[in-house]
Amino acid sequence: MPHSNPSLQVTADHQIKMAEAPIHKPGQGEVLLHIKCTGICGSDIHFWKTGRIGPLIVESDCILGHEASGVVLKVGEGVEEFKAGDRVAVEPGVPCEKCWLCREGRYNLCEDVKFSGVWPHHGTLQRFKVHPAKWLHKIPDNVSFAEGALLEPLSVVLHGIRRAGLTLGRGALICGAGPIGLIALLASRASGAHPLIITDLEPKRLAFAKKLVPDCETFQVDRNASAEDNAKNIRKLFGEHEYGAPETVLECTGVESSIVTGAFAVRRGGTVMVIGVGRPVVNNIPFMHLSLGEVSFFSLAIHRPCYSQSE
Amino acid sequence: MPHSNPSLQVTADHQIKMAEAPIHKPGQGEVLLHIKCTGICGSDIHFWKTGRIGPLIVESDCILGHEASGVVLKVGEGVEEFKAGDRVAVEPGVPCEKCWLCREGRYNLCEDVKFSGVWPHHGTLQRFKVHPAKWLHKIPDNVSFAEGALLEPLSVVLHGIRRAGLTLGRGALICGAGPIGLIALLASRASGAHPLIITDLEPKRLAFAKKLVPDCETFQVDRNASAEDNAKNIRKLFGEHEYGAPETVLECTGVESSIVTGAFAVRRGGTVMVIGVGRPVVNNIPFMHLSLGEVSFFSLAIHRPCYSQSE
Amino acid sequence: MPHSNPSLQVTADHQIKMAEAPIHKPGQGEVLLHIKCTGICGSDIHFWKTGRIGPLIVESDCILGHEASGVVLKVGEGVEEFKAGDRVAVEPGVPCEKCWLCREGRYNLCEDVKFSGVWPHHGTLQRFKVHPAKWLHKIPDNVSFAEGALLEPLSVVLHGIRRAGLTLGRGALICGAGPIGLIALLASRASGAHPLIITDLEPKRLAFAKKLVPDCETFQVDRNASAEDNAKNIRKLFGEHEYGAPETVLECTGVESSIVTGAFAVRRGGTVMVIGVGRPVVNNIPFMHLSLGEVSFFSLAIHRPCYSQSE
Amino acid sequence: MPHSNPSLQVTADHQIKMAEAPIHKPGQGEVLLHIKCTGICGSDIHFWKTGRIGPLIVESDCILGHEASGVVLKVGEGVEEFKAGDRVAVEPGVPCEKCWLCREGRYNLCEDVKFSGVWPHHGTLQRFKVHPAKWLHKIPDNVSFAEGALLEPLSVVLHGIRRAGLTLGRGALICGAGPIGLIALLASRASGAHPLIITDLEPKRLAFAKKLVPDCETFQVDRNASAEDNAKNIRKLFGEHEYGAPETVLECTGVESSIVTGAFAVRRGGTVMVIGVGRPVVNNIPFMHLSLGEVSFFSLAIHRPCYSQSE
Repeated sequence: MPHSNPSLQVTADHQIKMAEAPIHKPGQGEVLLHIKCTGICGSDIHFWKTGRIGPLIVESDCILGHEASGVVLKVGEGVEEFKAGDRVAVEPGVPCEKCWLCREGRYNLCEDVKFSGVWPHHGTLQRFKVHPAKWLHKIPDNVSFAEGALLEPLSVVLHGIRRAGLTLGRGALICGAGPIGLIALLASRASGAHPLIITDLEPKRLAFAKKLVPDCETFQVDRNASAEDNAKNIRKLFGEHEYGAPETVLECTGVESSIVTGAFAVRRGGTVMVIGVGRPVVNNIPFMHLSLGEVSFFSLAIHRPCYSQSE
Repeated sequence: MPHSNPSLQVTADHQIKMAEAPIHKPGQGEVLLHIKCTGICGSDIHFWKTGRIGPLIVESDCILGHEASGVVLKVGEGVEEFKAGDRVAVEPGVPCEKCWLCREGRYNLCEDVKFSGVWPHHGTLQRFKVHPAKWLHKIPDNVSFAEGALLEPLSVVLHGIRRAGLTLGRGALICGAGPIGLIALLASRASGAHPLIITDLEPKRLAFAKKLVPDCETFQVDRNASAEDNAKNIRKLFGEHEYGAPETVLECTGVESSIVTGAFAVRRGGTVMVIGVGRPVVNNIPFMHLSLGEVSFFSLAIHRPCYSQSE
Repeated sequence: MPHSNPSLQVTADHQIKMAEAPIHKPGQGEVLLHIKCTGICGSDIHFWKTGRIGPLIVESDCILGHEASGVVLKVGEGVEEFKAGDRVAVEPGVPCEKCWLCREGRYNLCEDVKFSGVWPHHGTLQRFKVHPAKWLHKIPDNVSFAEGALLEPLSVVLHGIRRAGLTLGRGALICGAGPIGLIALLASRASGAHPLIITDLEPKRLAFAKKLVPDCETFQVDRNASAEDNAKNIRKLFGEHEYGAPETVLECTGVESSIVTGAFAVRRGGTVMVIGVGRPVVNNIPFMHLSLGEVSFFSLAIHRPCYSQSE
Repeated sequence: MPHSNPSLQVTADHQIKMAEAPIHKPGQGEVLLHIKCTGICGSDIHFWKTGRIGPLIVESDCILGHEASGVVLKVGEGVEEFKAGDRVAVEPGVPCEKCWLCREGRYNLCEDVKFSGVWPHHGTLQRFKVHPAKWLHKIPDNVSFAEGALLEPLSVVLHGIRRAGLTLGRGALICGAGPIGLIALLASRASGAHPLIITDLEPKRLAFAKKLVPDCETFQVDRNASAEDNAKNIRKLFGEHEYGAPETVLECTGVESSIVTGAFAVRRGGTVMVIGVGRPVVNNIPFMHLSLGEVSFFSLAIHRPCYSQSE
């Protein structure tokens, strides 16, 4: 059995530190994992830099991390689906399974969810972690541990795309060419969205996006222009198409100016979907613009079941 | 034939005035109406007091009014569905019928709609008005002209309830006991919503609401409390129910503090639907609260086809 | 502790018999109930008379019954939500909670569900039954045990109404004035459906329906007429309305001639929802009629979460 | 102006013949077209071979054809969107634009639609045809006339895929590798469906499908096996996936045995969508199988607005 478990922790006063953590024994229905990969999410940075995400507050030392994959070391009583050596991706939210949201299948909204890396629930940025077998998913040999760790943000994006109703032949605008934006770009392309425009402040990021999905178009946001003016210029890229605006905006930065730009850019009757985390409060929402256009304004931060294909 | 057509007009400098208007002849597919009733909508007041609603601006004299009913005086060429003497309700938005939004049946979003009382399209606050036969609906003898005029705001509310997905056994919060709020209260009751809470600042309005729908509950908003605190107290009224919060919020004031209260009051996975018009921009939206709860945030100002039962 | 447990069992050769059954001890998370009421469902009769419902076959003695309520006698380890003396309704299907359908909240479709009264899972037509606490729902004092037992068929109907999308102001046709049909009639009325027509072969049943919901209309099906002709005559009852046909058909008999009548009666773009069980195979579906009218053809037999208001 | 207009007509006694047809002048809002291409649809064959499709009956000589493209020769009064020389695709159904289905945007269900090639409305298998400008769509130079003619069946399939809700990562079964099946295969691939299986009786057709979409799998239907057994074998192709069955079945033959196979093959909670025309009546629907699995059974024959990207 392992004897040292180094971990990365965020503290109540917004510091991060490395510290030794206890190694737990897997209980009934649980599995002890050797974590092999953990992605660093924007939310981990938020917790580090600001100590909170909206109502979620770091009140004492907490191991960060929730985008993870690993290898099964040992299984607890009653676990039949896994055995030592299995390669798995971690579904980081462990819901109560009793409340009506859990019963309805909307377990990502469970108010009693134990989400890895959200205080007081320790995350995956440790070497060894115990996790319920039900919230692990086998990954095949042709999926690397790094890819396995990325199934979590991919799930968030897929959930967003489904809720937004993005489908074949619909125009999409992706705001932000960071990790979530790039995943959204790939998933939108795979869904048949067309045309497909991605924005960012940084030309380098846009160049990378263009390399990743050559038939997308890119738009460099003008820091000095208003959201409305940036939106106008974005719309021009959809201009040869009858409606000249995206059906769906996948806003992947959580930054107010970008959200407002998306709200001005989307076509009438379209959808703005903000994927990811941001500030507790957003201002400058162009209310009457959204209202006269009946724009659906959605946001989400946590994935719904999308891990295995069956979900 | 009539020879005088008094009308109520809003001017570019936010005055209202009575003025004589021309009486037009009904053209191909049109009908000349004797307007019998026009309701005064919050939007009429907005145009009068502020000269605009979001991007819609009064640039010169414009006859107000769009909630109307009347009697057919004369039909133009090709009109077979109506004859002189027919009692009708007016559907005030005349869409282009060519754009893709019209083709999809979302004609309330048509960018080229000619909406009665929205500059430069004269409204129904005149004695005689010409209107296309297609956008008139016969009303039976047991529906008064006043009721016929109210079909327009009723249509807006019904469209809102449908888009919000409010159905049997779901809890609903109605924010605001003005005309739209009261219609929303009646329509929610008719839809089987339960429990049903309505809010307002004025006890008199709440007393009227309670008289109208005795099995609703009322909540007087505390002007001095925060939106979050008002929301907490509203939730207590849902408290004996498992989830302790409304599934659907029908916000019927368009006022920022009320919208934010609704956003804090709604249950996780629920919907906030803002019905009606308000300021161009809204601030203080509790973004992470909505995002973690995956609240759907909808708004609308114009009805979708709801006039006759078949729609 | 109780010492005798009489039960009603169906046998593999389609007989029913009374027999003494063992009294089990409640295990982890389980509750021992004193069953107070069990409704007799059409499916119980199907199992008795034909030994099967579609792919579900009675292979050996099985206690029938799944519409039940009772009193908690004793709770097993880990049960905190209930205590002896609590009055409860039984949710009869106990899903696996592991498969993707369970994860998605569609646990009524779980292939490994243990459904009370469906072989080999013993049902509630016994005096004492052990059931998982998670699938029990407290009933308040003003709900009788008989009413508590009826929550199961009510849940089936509510699930059907939701899936059919029946809402305020939409016309509905209820086929069959048996128990499910009458529940559908009440729930459709509570949902604001209008007009509301119910059919049956028996005038007595129709008279009872009319007494229950006075503003519905009734239609006596003509046994000697074709489904198409019965549908034509049903449509006449919707005739003063523009579209002259129901938006939604809630077919509550599972009998082929009634299903086909519903298919001919529904309006273009409408929905036929068959609630309940019937023969394994149905013939004479008017395919091109449904196809040209884009009628949605749904059927269901088991409830989705509808027991408590929050679901 | 042209002086000869040869046409292909079906007769009331199920013959086809070539006959000279009159050349009409384009009226208000109409366009005279030189038809360049018309696809031969299964429905044309149905009208020829059986004289009917469900309730649609050929009562006298009628020019067939509705999958068409052409060149504008002359425009009628009021037509501003087109000019002589424009290359266009024909949207063959001309709805009444007055009924509630038209108002809702479901104009493909209009009961008074004038559909090209459906008696008594002459079709596009003539050299010169007058058509309303509203129901023509410009095609760019890089779209051939043959491709333009195929926009009609493509629209039917896209409408089917949208109504079926087929999206990224969902498994799909395409029944039939004829023209509609192949279009469905391409559109499903473009929508990100996976895995993707197509069936047919003919190995040659399957080989062609495989060439068209190399990452689909093919299944040769066994003419001598039951629908249930064929379904079982089809499911095996989905077998390495957790649920072992398609989420969506796009049935593209309209043949009873294939529809029933699809009904047995689809997964619980999935959708069977029958695209295209078939016999008036279908038998042997596995009702309890569909009901216990809550399978949605859809069918459609006519496209909804899908021609231009905005729709």
